Amino acid sequence: MPHAPATTRLSRDELLALDAHWRAANYLAVGQIYLMANPLLTEALRPEHVKPRLLGHWGTSPGLNLVHTHLNRVIKARGLDAICVWGPGHGGPAVLANSWLEGSYSETYPDVSRDAEGMGLLFRQFSFPGGVPSHVAPETPGSIHEGGELGYSLSHAYGAALDNPGLLVACVIGDGEAETGPLAASWHSNKFLDPVHDGAVLPILHLNGYKIANPTVLSRLPGEELDELLRGYGHDPIHVSGDDPLTVHQDMAAAMDTALDRIAAFQEAAREQGATGRPRWPMIVLRTPKGWTGPAEVDGLPVEGTWRAHQVPLSEVRTNPAHLRQLEEWLRSYRIGELFDEAGRPRPQVLACVPDGDRRLGANPHTNGGVLLRDLPIPDLDRFAVPVDKPGVTLHEPTRVLGDLLERVMADTADRRDFRIVGPDETASNRLQAVFRASGKAWQAGTLEVDEDLDPHGRVMEILSEHTCQGWLEGYLLTGRHGMFSCYEAFVHIVDSMVNQHIKWLRTTRAIPWRRPIASLNYLLTSHVWRQDHNGFSHQDPGFIDHVLNKAPEVVRVYLPPDTNTLLSVAEHVLKSKDYVNVVVAGKQPCFDWLDMDSARAHCARGAGIWEWAGTEDGRTEPDVVLGCAGDVPTQEVLAAAQLLRRHLPRLTVRVVNVVDLARLLPKEEHPHGMSDADYDALFTPDQPVVFAYHGYPWLIHRLAYRRTGHRDLHVRGYKENGTTTTPFDMVVRNDLDRYRLVMDVIDRVPGLAVAAAPVRQLMEDTRLRHHAWIREHGTDLPEVADWTWEG
Amino acid sequence: MPHAPATTRLSRDELLALDAHWRAANYLAVGQIYLMANPLLTEALRPEHVKPRLLGHWGTSPGLNLVHTHLNRVIKARGLDAICVWGPGHGGPAVLANSWLEGSYSETYPDVSRDAEGMGLLFRQFSFPGGVPSHVAPETPGSIHEGGELGYSLSHAYGAALDNPGLLVACVIGDGEAETGPLAASWHSNKFLDPVHDGAVLPILHLNGYKIANPTVLSRLPGEELDELLRGYGHDPIHVSGDDPLTVHQDMAAAMDTALDRIAAFQEAAREQGATGRPRWPMIVLRTPKGWTGPAEVDGLPVEGTWRAHQVPLSEVRTNPAHLRQLEEWLRSYRIGELFDEAGRPRPQVLACVPDGDRRLGANPHTNGGVLLRDLPIPDLDRFAVPVDKPGVTLHEPTRVLGDLLERVMADTADRRDFRIVGPDETASNRLQAVFRASGKAWQAGTLEVDEDLDPHGRVMEILSEHTCQGWLEGYLLTGRHGMFSCYEAFVHIVDSMVNQHIKWLRTTRAIPWRRPIASLNYLLTSHVWRQDHNGFSHQDPGFIDHVLNKAPEVVRVYLPPDTNTLLSVAEHVLKSKDYVNVVVAGKQPCFDWLDMDSARAHCARGAGIWEWAGTEDGRTEPDVVLGCAGDVPTQEVLAAAQLLRRHLPRLTVRVVNVVDLARLLPKEEHPHGMSDADYDALFTPDQPVVFAYHGYPWLIHRLAYRRTGHRDLHVRGYKENGTTTTPFDMVVRNDLDRYRLVMDVIDRVPGLAVAAAPVRQLMEDTRLRHHAWIREHGTDLPEVADWTWEG
Repeated sequence: MPHAPATTRLSRDELLALDAHWRAANYLAVGQIYLMANPLLTEALRPEHVKPRLLGHWGTSPGLNLVHTHLNRVIKARGLDAICVWGPGHGGPAVLANSWLEGSYSETYPDVSRDAEGMGLLFRQFSFPGGVPSHVAPETPGSIHEGGELGYSLSHAYGAALDNPGLLVACVIGDGEAETGPLAASWHSNKFLDPVHDGAVLPILHLNGYKIANPTVLSRLPGEELDELLRGYGHDPIHVSGDDPLTVHQDMAAAMDTALDRIAAFQEAAREQGATGRPRWPMIVLRTPKGWTGPAEVDGLPVEGTWRAHQVPLSEVRTNPAHLRQLEEWLRSYRIGELFDEAGRPRPQVLACVPDGDRRLGANPHTNGGVLLRDLPIPDLDRFAVPVDKPGVTLHEPTRVLGDLLERVMADTADRRDFRIVGPDETASNRLQAVFRASGKAWQAGTLEVDEDLDPHGRVMEILSEHTCQGWLEGYLLTGRHGMFSCYEAFVHIVDSMVNQHIKWLRTTRAIPWRRPIASLNYLLTSHVWRQDHNGFSHQDPGFIDHVLNKAPEVVRVYLPPDTNTLLSVAEHVLKSKDYVNVVVAGKQPCFDWLDMDSARAHCARGAGIWEWAGTEDGRTEPDVVLGCAGDVPTQEVLAAAQLLRRHLPRLTVRVVNVVDLARLLPKEEHPHGMSDADYDALFTPDQPVVFAYHGYPWLIHRLAYRRTGHRDLHVRGYKENGTTTTPFDMVVRNDLDRYRLVMDVIDRVPGLAVAAAPVRQLMEDTRLRHHAWIREHGTDLPEVADWTWEG
Repeated sequence: MPHAPATTRLSRDELLALDAHWRAANYLAVGQIYLMANPLLTEALRPEHVKPRLLGHWGTSPGLNLVHTHLNRVIKARGLDAICVWGPGHGGPAVLANSWLEGSYSETYPDVSRDAEGMGLLFRQFSFPGGVPSHVAPETPGSIHEGGELGYSLSHAYGAALDNPGLLVACVIGDGEAETGPLAASWHSNKFLDPVHDGAVLPILHLNGYKIANPTVLSRLPGEELDELLRGYGHDPIHVSGDDPLTVHQDMAAAMDTALDRIAAFQEAAREQGATGRPRWPMIVLRTPKGWTGPAEVDGLPVEGTWRAHQVPLSEVRTNPAHLRQLEEWLRSYRIGELFDEAGRPRPQVLACVPDGDRRLGANPHTNGGVLLRDLPIPDLDRFAVPVDKPGVTLHEPTRVLGDLLERVMADTADRRDFRIVGPDETASNRLQAVFRASGKAWQAGTLEVDEDLDPHGRVMEILSEHTCQGWLEGYLLTGRHGMFSCYEAFVHIVDSMVNQHIKWLRTTRAIPWRRPIASLNYLLTSHVWRQDHNGFSHQDPGFIDHVLNKAPEVVRVYLPPDTNTLLSVAEHVLKSKDYVNVVVAGKQPCFDWLDMDSARAHCARGAGIWEWAGTEDGRTEPDVVLGCAGDVPTQEVLAAAQLLRRHLPRLTVRVVNVVDLARLLPKEEHPHGMSDADYDALFTPDQPVVFAYHGYPWLIHRLAYRRTGHRDLHVRGYKENGTTTTPFDMVVRNDLDRYRLVMDVIDRVPGLAVAAAPVRQLMEDTRLRHHAWIREHGTDLPEVADWTWEG
């Protein structure tokens, strides 16, 4: 499928102006890597002008500069609303150089003015202590993407384009990055992009041939095979290749125009003529040398066009006069005087291609999504609340009821189109299918008669790639919209590294005044560890909580609502919140209703509290024991244990404390939601035994609470990797989290109870043995467990 | 590139025999999902014959059965040595059915005999408490792959094929699984497969059209686009498509023969004729209905060929007579009497295609790699040790010296070819490049003059996909070989979920007597959090240690060697070990040598110990303070702090304890390497303050040590997410892990020191302030830090 011949021919003047812009950007990139003084080379280069530690990535920078230059041209020529995701984000010098050239940098950081003094600061601050990071980062104007951990550029780009019909999202994909799994999966995002309601994504695969030390796979495929791959990904590739700048400029301009003409035609066909097929969207394959225009050879070894150009091609500039001379020649090769005037200001020719105002890539408001964010309309929870006259009698599936709420949110954003739900083929499995009444599932690939709920304009996004789901949602949120990711709890570990980077991004933006808060990244983790009894050990893992709690406390929140109404309350809270990563763990299986809506709201607002109705305190002294719980299944086991204690040890005073907001257990100095020691002691007592049933790995509770006075008598039960395919109750028995074990723990922990309660303890032991025999015989749980209700 | 027309034509008898085997396997799959009695339907089906909880995945099972049947045929006909990786591992019933049919199941589990009684057990045990998991699992004969968390089948298959020139590794890839990032990346593994020394991988993409609730992307591409994609991946696809069994059998047989003929031809060309180009390996695209041969409709809704066939198509069999009747019709549709004799034994026609002995897929020793494993030849460490006359004076790059050792191991396995190093383009960056003297990097794609160290027969594997690296290595280890994964510390989180599954696999195999121990999965994490000062915040993350320490303690080991010789000792240990996941965190930057080789060996054998030479104890009483350390940078800071204390507070008695083996800090009841309380107290004292400098998140140390008597006075410093691009020493200052802060901690912690040591504390404060000013001015660390050496 050959593409139409490019018809764009730039005039000599246009060509030279683009080249001047590109040379200026290249000069500024080299300057950032090397110079801490003498930015305009107004005097001969001396060792002391050069930074003592040379950091940064030159190799990809000239390619990024080329793309930026040509995006400038088409944005200006066509009046485009466009942003760019820079996959090779280690090419920070390039993106910073362009922002400085177009003026967005100096507007954002007035100290770094667009003149010689500012240029000096721009150079010096780069990768310098107290300065700016070496990669594209939250500090970089126009960026929604840190390219340090490669792989997420294309899914970020698609996320940004969703529901932004007027937006073009260019996306530079490095050929190294293209080898990663997340990137490889995300090519198929074009099967989910709606030409009517979404903007366009223009992938630019930059084949510069090498990674750190190896050739890249894609650059070494025969041309035909690469084209087959890209067409198989659903694209129509347009090639630009070469190392002669003016030829490449001419070809790149033609390629850009060809791509944008086609995009415009596809969008018009879909929007004006009602075309419905999936377009074969264009993309550009840009093949230029790594470290292009840099030193061809250093110390007798080839550098330009090889992996040796990846970081800093000349490494001994301060000590090796030959290197110093070569650096000066390299810098001067850009013909500085043509690019900047005596005051260091870019000359008019250099800026000829630069668009104005918000259309500059470093100033487009989509890249600072908080400025575009509108509050999500959340309906009154009372419309969805389940009635609870008496705790522990009725059952509901929490996520199913949440689905009703989300249906409303989806419906109420039908015109605004700023809310999406993503998930790896699990929306219905996680029982949120009510949302399909308000929006189908986005789908642009083929359909069959038998299919259900697919919709080319849908806002529920399902692909069996947690990476792609995460990338889409991040891109969507970073550009000022709202969303939720529903996922099996065990498999959200697939995006551990991605959430790391997003949390780091959010944490960094907290200290950047011009970055406005964006909507939180909300995880609904369901099909959780205790109810993957049918899928077995591979599906049982509650460790994502531990993972995120290692990260910045000002960003991370973890909620474990114990029933349906508390889930509604938590959902409302997280959907309204900003700049957090919220992890909500909730069940999809029938779960006892413990709290009515008002109580649920109050309990969630406190984050942790005593359930007086469940305990047997007399109100005069401290209880003999505190039963703590966090999570739906642990809460049920604790209440069943409390009931057993009430029946079998009626004189024991028991307090039940439920924790919804896990960070409440931390000291207040360690987390904004942390409790003071006094508040903690008021819940858990400073000196009475606490038996705590926790949803995940038990040591996490110790890690949170180790500084508390009562920690020595805190005894935690949780998941300890004893998983398999079995019954739901056997899962808790295998991990010693069951009601009978908890009663035994109480007996073992409360001083003076051992002898008097020995028969009760034996009864518990016997019941556990009976359980084991029963499930092997019947394959179901003991009737007394299956039929249990609260009788407090 | 059309493939040659298939010439295979099966006779009617052959066809019917294959179909009988397939029907038998389908019957056994359905039986496992539904029946707990009446396995041969010798009486009419009644509700009580049906399991009370219906678990399992029917949808993929008939497709897996088809593949297994046809693999049987070609293995027998061609005398192949073959294994199969079952990507859709949730189709456990299919793989179990085939193992039972071929007899390998009964040989492995004699209770489950190949007769009616055994069939009854086979059915009952499936997904039943105390029985076998619903997915392909370690318990499954012939398996090296748990398909619960999808995405890893193809990289596992390539790992198994490496250095097994006589082996064919078939790999069924589900079309859902194909959407995942890890799978999408792993297609390019064929650029690394050596036709001379490696076996062949035959991918079988099973397009059954649906996931849990959605169509799959690949099944809904136009045929031409899918073919472009697969050819772009480097394959030559052969299509088998249909829903008429006998036609599909005929086509599948032809496709298998075509594929195997081509594989044989490619291998012969490379091995006999010296052909060097990368072959375009064949693959099979198998398009059959999901839930094929199951109920076409249930309750008026289409099931066969739709997502509704994914799990259990008839869900109310015990309560809905229509469902019960439909199940019985379904089961009888396989014509039971033709398949099994009265005693429940498979009839000869059914077994006609089944190969013998070890050639059966459920008995091939490659799938129980421990039986093939040979000890790795590890040279005498003294040949590589660095001389240490006096601690803390000389510097070496630990990983560079390790590279020398690995070069020797690589050279000594040149003929055996059972050792590989994998990494995401970082072997040289991590300074292990000495290994290239013994083996180049595997590479079958195009090469250029300028390339270095690429070798079509190399055993160092580099691709910029941590997922693929991990998958390759797992597959290699599971089939009885050795290896190491070298990775940037922060980015190993990319494989968090994969290592989860591998640890679960190893843990489960510990309880399976016939599974023999395999070589450990060894991570070398370098370019670690403290020395990613140049790449910045995105590259700084020590949380992988926390992640793995949540997992089974019998499998997980974490080592933090503080210098070069300890790294050598740890490397020897982990390379010799079996059935572990070993995480070794070590530096690549110049690091002080603290211990000579003998001391290093002794120290590593203990795992934690007092460095008497570094302390100032008088030997009669407990020290005033213990300085603990784990990790190379924390160790350096602790020793610098010890020196400062010696100089400024000479009467304070200080003990320095270094921890190499992190699990030593755990109680011995919690981890096989855990210390007794007495041993812990002997190191850290029961009651003196401990200031502990740790490589990673500080709370991990609390999580490990919270039960110790002295925990109340344990004060831990570590990484707390204060990262950026800065100098190395500023990284420790920003995280309060620096020597000056540690001295202040000692002063704050040791009772009675506050007043007397106030001037020293002020000096430390002042030095920290001086540090901040200096780096902002010079961009380098304070000379007194940069030039520091131990002067004990």
